[in-house]
Amino acid sequence: MNPSEWFTEQAADTGTAFSLKIKQKLHEEQSEFQFLEIYETESFGNLMVIDGCTMVSTRDNFFYHEMMSHPALFTHPNPKRVWIIGGGDCGTLKEVLKHSTVEEAVQIDIDERVTRLAEIYFPELCESNNDPRAQLKFIDGIKWVKDAAPNSVDIIIVDSTDPIGPAQGLFSKAFYQDCFNCLSENGMVVQQSESALLHLKLIGEMRDAMGSAGFSHLQTLFFPQCLYPSGWWSATIASKTELSQFRELDSANKAFDTVFYNVDIHKAALAQPEFVKKAFSI
Amino acid sequence: MNPSEWFTEQAADTGTAFSLKIKQKLHEEQSEFQFLEIYETESFGNLMVIDGCTMVSTRDNFFYHEMMSHPALFTHPNPKRVWIIGGGDCGTLKEVLKHSTVEEAVQIDIDERVTRLAEIYFPELCESNNDPRAQLKFIDGIKWVKDAAPNSVDIIIVDSTDPIGPAQGLFSKAFYQDCFNCLSENGMVVQQSESALLHLKLIGEMRDAMGSAGFSHLQTLFFPQCLYPSGWWSATIASKTELSQFRELDSANKAFDTVFYNVDIHKAALAQPEFVKKAFSI
Repeated sequence: MNPSEWFTEQAADTGTAFSLKIKQKLHEEQSEFQFLEIYETESFGNLMVIDGCTMVSTRDNFFYHEMMSHPALFTHPNPKRVWIIGGGDCGTLKEVLKHSTVEEAVQIDIDERVTRLAEIYFPELCESNNDPRAQLKFIDGIKWVKDAAPNSVDIIIVDSTDPIGPAQGLFSKAFYQDCFNCLSENGMVVQQSESALLHLKLIGEMRDAMGSAGFSHLQTLFFPQCLYPSGWWSATIASKTELSQFRELDSANKAFDTVFYNVDIHKAALAQPEFVKKAFSI
Repeated sequence: MNPSEWFTEQAADTGTAFSLKIKQKLHEEQSEFQFLEIYETESFGNLMVIDGCTMVSTRDNFFYHEMMSHPALFTHPNPKRVWIIGGGDCGTLKEVLKHSTVEEAVQIDIDERVTRLAEIYFPELCESNNDPRAQLKFIDGIKWVKDAAPNSVDIIIVDSTDPIGPAQGLFSKAFYQDCFNCLSENGMVVQQSESALLHLKLIGEMRDAMGSAGFSHLQTLFFPQCLYPSGWWSATIASKTELSQFRELDSANKAFDTVFYNVDIHKAALAQPEFVKKAFSI
């Protein structure tokens, strides 16, 4: 494999690597926080890489962005105020804004450069950035949540990089406590939670941290995500209130288009594999 | 990435590649039909590679083997006679034999060497090979099916390599017609059907071929499979009779262990993503 023709992410701790064939490197820069690269690939459109990890591609980002947003937004009874911590490529923001209940969607990514590059190389993800309900803030999301007043927000979506580097604090009990404190009565956090095949221990620790921060109802959802290690990803919802049902009828009658998500896919994502059921006590 | 430390499968036509870190190569040989390699990997146990394509690893084969067998066996009303075309690693055979309804399970793989290597390097997959209900035949599965009498078998599982090389004939209308002719009244074929992200056209063509061979009921199921391109795989069931329900109660009360499959996962695998629904007319 000629390294000049392929971008490879080595998930060295898992003994796996994933590669995409590239046509050319379109951009690279060291931002204040991270090393950012943009490639044009042979078959996945454009690719954003942060600190050596594949983040988003034109072709397959729909899995992740749809599954980070629609299940939570169709579970909360009436989501009006949504914060996205991270999510600088604006793909999650775009999905959130598809919900007519949403009155305010605030994206808080520490690194403005991620958004500026997304505007150039992933314009389709940024097409709702000028929605009057959208706010883009380029500040520290951990501090933002810590400083927030009680009952400030209905759903916090933690659309972060892996739990190393700048995102590490987003996987801690202290952060989840701060989320708990500023969420409204039926409030919930959604956090990308890595691969159940490769990072089951991490998912368990995250669930424990969420539980001990006061969230008594947890739900881990599973979905494909080719670009991420193992190709099988998860999101975990931590809620103050019961999660046993979602707004199925609203989901089935959704007034917007999706590529992956629908009401059946929502239910499917909730199915817990045997080995996952055995691993989690709650 | 040091090529001596990694095994890489380049799925060049899809612009993707997947790699596993290896400790050592344990074996290689050119059989009469294929080039076979066995590696010891860092984190996925042993790995079998056929003609450069990853086939099976100790760690993650359960996804594929369970999903190639249990959904079909819990859909057929009373599966007694099962044939596995291909499947030389014996993992599907092992899963099939977990069903107490099964009286006869015949594995027909053209390449005996695959099974002989599985016995050495994947002994856990071969632990039911001496079950009195099991028969292992090392002959051409296409011819076996063509020569079979009507009403010979209840389920044919096509556990093949990709539709190139020796397996190409297993994806054809002629083969499905031969299957149709030897299946019993409620008979069904299950075929591994690649990735909906990368090979949607192929799945559509396979479904068309199955339909034109006389199978009026089709069901494509989706499940994770880290080792295969995109990490998201599928199996397609083609049935002579209605597929709208499966034996949910029997699945929920199954008397055997699985790692991935359960009744909820079965239902989940049936959920059709939006883009898949739009792609398939039937």
